[in-house]
Amino acid sequence: MDVELINPFLTSTVNVLKTMAFTEARPSSPLIKKTAGTFGDITGVIGMASATLSGSMILSFSQTCILQVLAKMLNESPKTSIDDEVVDAVGELTNMICGGAKAELAKLDHRFDIATPTMIVGKSTEVTYHFGTPTIIVPFETEHGGFVIEANLTLRR
Amino acid sequence: MDVELINPFLTSTVNVLKTMAFTEARPSSPLIKKTAGTFGDITGVIGMASATLSGSMILSFSQTCILQVLAKMLNESPKTSIDDEVVDAVGELTNMICGGAKAELAKLDHRFDIATPTMIVGKSTEVTYHFGTPTIIVPFETEHGGFVIEANLTLRR
Repeated sequence: MDVELINPFLTSTVNVLKTMAFTEARPSSPLIKKTAGTFGDITGVIGMASATLSGSMILSFSQTCILQVLAKMLNESPKTSIDDEVVDAVGELTNMICGGAKAELAKLDHRFDIATPTMIVGKSTEVTYHFGTPTIIVPFETEHGGFVIEANLTLRR
Repeated sequence: MDVELINPFLTSTVNVLKTMAFTEARPSSPLIKKTAGTFGDITGVIGMASATLSGSMILSFSQTCILQVLAKMLNESPKTSIDDEVVDAVGELTNMICGGAKAELAKLDHRFDIATPTMIVGKSTEVTYHFGTPTIIVPFETEHGGFVIEANLTLRR
């Protein structure tokens, strides 16, 4: 994956967290993913596909972080555990971040549609991408703890 | 999800297992998914997307079943545990089954592209679909044990 293609995901993440959850997300430098495990306690996976490219994006939150983020989204006090509403919120955030990246990437002439997000609850779930496509990880820090996004995009030949 | 749309996934699964792994896969009746857990020890998730629809397909094998299926694919004796080659094989099967269904669904005028598959290793990983789209499960039996496919497809309004 061209590292340049990660920037739209990074920008979109910052925007969505700020707009939806009034949370400042500070990205670290993007890294190539070397291990298979998910970062967080709850993870959203979303597919991207068109005639010209295919890929996946992952958004993975620590429990502490997502419970605080959701509290800010709903303007309520934080829940104590991950329930269906949290799972739905992660799906919504995954969808919105990927949607924002999609709009930016279209400007670079990379066009695709977005699949239905799938959520995985559980830490250290092993998630592996197929076809040896290098996956870029961007760790984010917030005042409530960390989360990561990961993305891989392959141009079809 | 229109139950009629599941048939192309069912037919494609039978074909791919027969062609690639010389394995007869016998489907049971499709069911609506009620619980969140994955069926098997290794699971492939693949997204489907176009301007007119979005969805996901899951292929989830028991360890016994996938090790025997892979042995048949490679004409080798079965491995004793799930390694990278097994993970890649599940990715390949997920991709091929979804590709077969894509070809059939195109004949019904439902067109989409396929995202990069993501594999999840681990039993009882909780996988939940977003947006409350009903997911159809089809359990399959083989002489080596069971596996399931699940699919949800939503037509965009």
